Amino acid sequence: MKVLVIGAAGMIGRKLLEQVAKTPNILGAPVSGLTLVDVIEPAAPAALADKAKCQALDLSTDGAAEALIAERPDIIFNLAAVVSGEAEADFDKGYRVNLDGGRALLEAIRHEGQREAYKPRLIFASSVAVFGAPFPEKIGDEFFTTPLTSYGTQKAIIELLIADYSRRGIIDGVSIRLPTICVRPGKPNAAASGFFSNILREPLVGQEAVLPVDDSVRHWFASPRAAVGFFTHAATLDLAKVGPRRSLMMPGLSATVADQIAALEKVAGPKATALIRREPDATIQGIVAGWPCDFDPKRAIELGFTAETSFEEIIRIHIEDELGGQIGV
Amino acid sequence: MKVLVIGAAGMIGRKLLEQVAKTPNILGAPVSGLTLVDVIEPAAPAALADKAKCQALDLSTDGAAEALIAERPDIIFNLAAVVSGEAEADFDKGYRVNLDGGRALLEAIRHEGQREAYKPRLIFASSVAVFGAPFPEKIGDEFFTTPLTSYGTQKAIIELLIADYSRRGIIDGVSIRLPTICVRPGKPNAAASGFFSNILREPLVGQEAVLPVDDSVRHWFASPRAAVGFFTHAATLDLAKVGPRRSLMMPGLSATVADQIAALEKVAGPKATALIRREPDATIQGIVAGWPCDFDPKRAIELGFTAETSFEEIIRIHIEDELGGQIGV
Repeated sequence: MKVLVIGAAGMIGRKLLEQVAKTPNILGAPVSGLTLVDVIEPAAPAALADKAKCQALDLSTDGAAEALIAERPDIIFNLAAVVSGEAEADFDKGYRVNLDGGRALLEAIRHEGQREAYKPRLIFASSVAVFGAPFPEKIGDEFFTTPLTSYGTQKAIIELLIADYSRRGIIDGVSIRLPTICVRPGKPNAAASGFFSNILREPLVGQEAVLPVDDSVRHWFASPRAAVGFFTHAATLDLAKVGPRRSLMMPGLSATVADQIAALEKVAGPKATALIRREPDATIQGIVAGWPCDFDPKRAIELGFTAETSFEEIIRIHIEDELGGQIGV
Repeated sequence: MKVLVIGAAGMIGRKLLEQVAKTPNILGAPVSGLTLVDVIEPAAPAALADKAKCQALDLSTDGAAEALIAERPDIIFNLAAVVSGEAEADFDKGYRVNLDGGRALLEAIRHEGQREAYKPRLIFASSVAVFGAPFPEKIGDEFFTTPLTSYGTQKAIIELLIADYSRRGIIDGVSIRLPTICVRPGKPNAAASGFFSNILREPLVGQEAVLPVDDSVRHWFASPRAAVGFFTHAATLDLAKVGPRRSLMMPGLSATVADQIAALEKVAGPKATALIRREPDATIQGIVAGWPCDFDPKRAIELGFTAETSFEEIIRIHIEDELGGQIGV
């Protein structure tokens, strides 16, 4: 089975590849070839290095998608995106990469299929950003998509195309709407959502972290491990069961900042929670107020997608996967 | 005020122009210039002929949108589309005209605005085809868009772009989701929905018409006159009241074929209804089974859009507007 991962240098891409490397047949068959691309050259896990071709590539440049599809991968993970803030700041770049790039991939598949029968599985990383406030208390599977960012608009458009290309038999596609991933490994970053991870990750290694919002703020979370599980499950899922509605909101955990802090205290004690410094930031509070708080993702749960059910579990996964099982506080 | 109508040769385009010609200031100010385009050269109403420029043009050809926007129209009606059946049969043409053409228009506006401040009102003719079965009994304003045709996919994508370009201040845009228009004037046509009009229009002039579905089939209707009203109302509506959710399902009338026939009998007597010949057609029955039956378009009604409330009214409008007030049976 030939696998193509677009956006392979990102956090989810790297973790997905590690999982594929250590779990034979997790994608339904042994991996015979692996093409990894990203705007910076990605790295393959050691166990797959002999089968892997790694390449720095912008999907939206002329001929890029065609070259990737000429190899006729069986499974394609499209994880690439210009992120929300950048797509908002740079209109042209956001539409070029997120919309034109995603569409170029679909068109390359269609044209390859016209040459010789071809219908790959395409798994697209979508986002809660397809939704825009105001929301019901719990967002159901049939709630409409009214994005309030260009990024969310671009994700919603690719979702529509994936459904139409799937309906027409060009691809076997599915769009995976990810919850906010927590705990994100790495350094604190400037993303408005960064604090949700910062206030757990930093105290767990004895570092201070800033909390810019009220403890009552509620949001929708899953761990990086759960996110990888969404993609590997989507790779082998019987999509006939999904039917023509190919955009699936993934399961997650609805939790407040207070829930996060209580879980941190349970796992790492009051020395950890004492490292959270409250510095209210009106701008971040305003942005976060427009985000969804809770979902009722019945379809994905029925289809066998799973996520964590407590924040303690999310924190323990971070300690296992990122800290070698050791708390540093 | 300069007005651009794209798709001006179609039924709605022609009726809209007649209304604009006979109702000064219906678009909020006198019309100082009028550009009418369609794939075949459209005609201007006599009263506006001296101000009108009529042109055969395909919006999706290179430079076409830029040339139209260089004139900086204040109001743009985009009524142009490759229709549902053709967009399904010809993948390339449907995406090129309905998606690339609509997007080229938005991009031309954005680039013109970068040159010199410019933010026209853009009114886009969308469709119930953005929805796909299964449906709730009544489709509410927050129901999701899961089109089951490429045409519906293309409409849903342009709706998303119109919302995003409006949010960013590039246009002042709104998408008008039209009910099925009934009674369509003209000859019977091969469209799967044609019979809804045929079974009224033909008997009213003493001609036979074929009914291919059961009397219990329910659907969502408005008259051509109501459709013109949607567009003229959208031209002057305060879009700040609409907010960021710019796709509006228009009001209409939910009626069964039996309701249609009962109204025809009331208006034109049993001699008219006797001209309806029942010839069940499994293909058409199958297509129609996937169409929406009923809506609860609260937002549009609150915003002042109106449609008919009985099928007798719809039939009387046809008799007034198309038959000079005379029934021919």
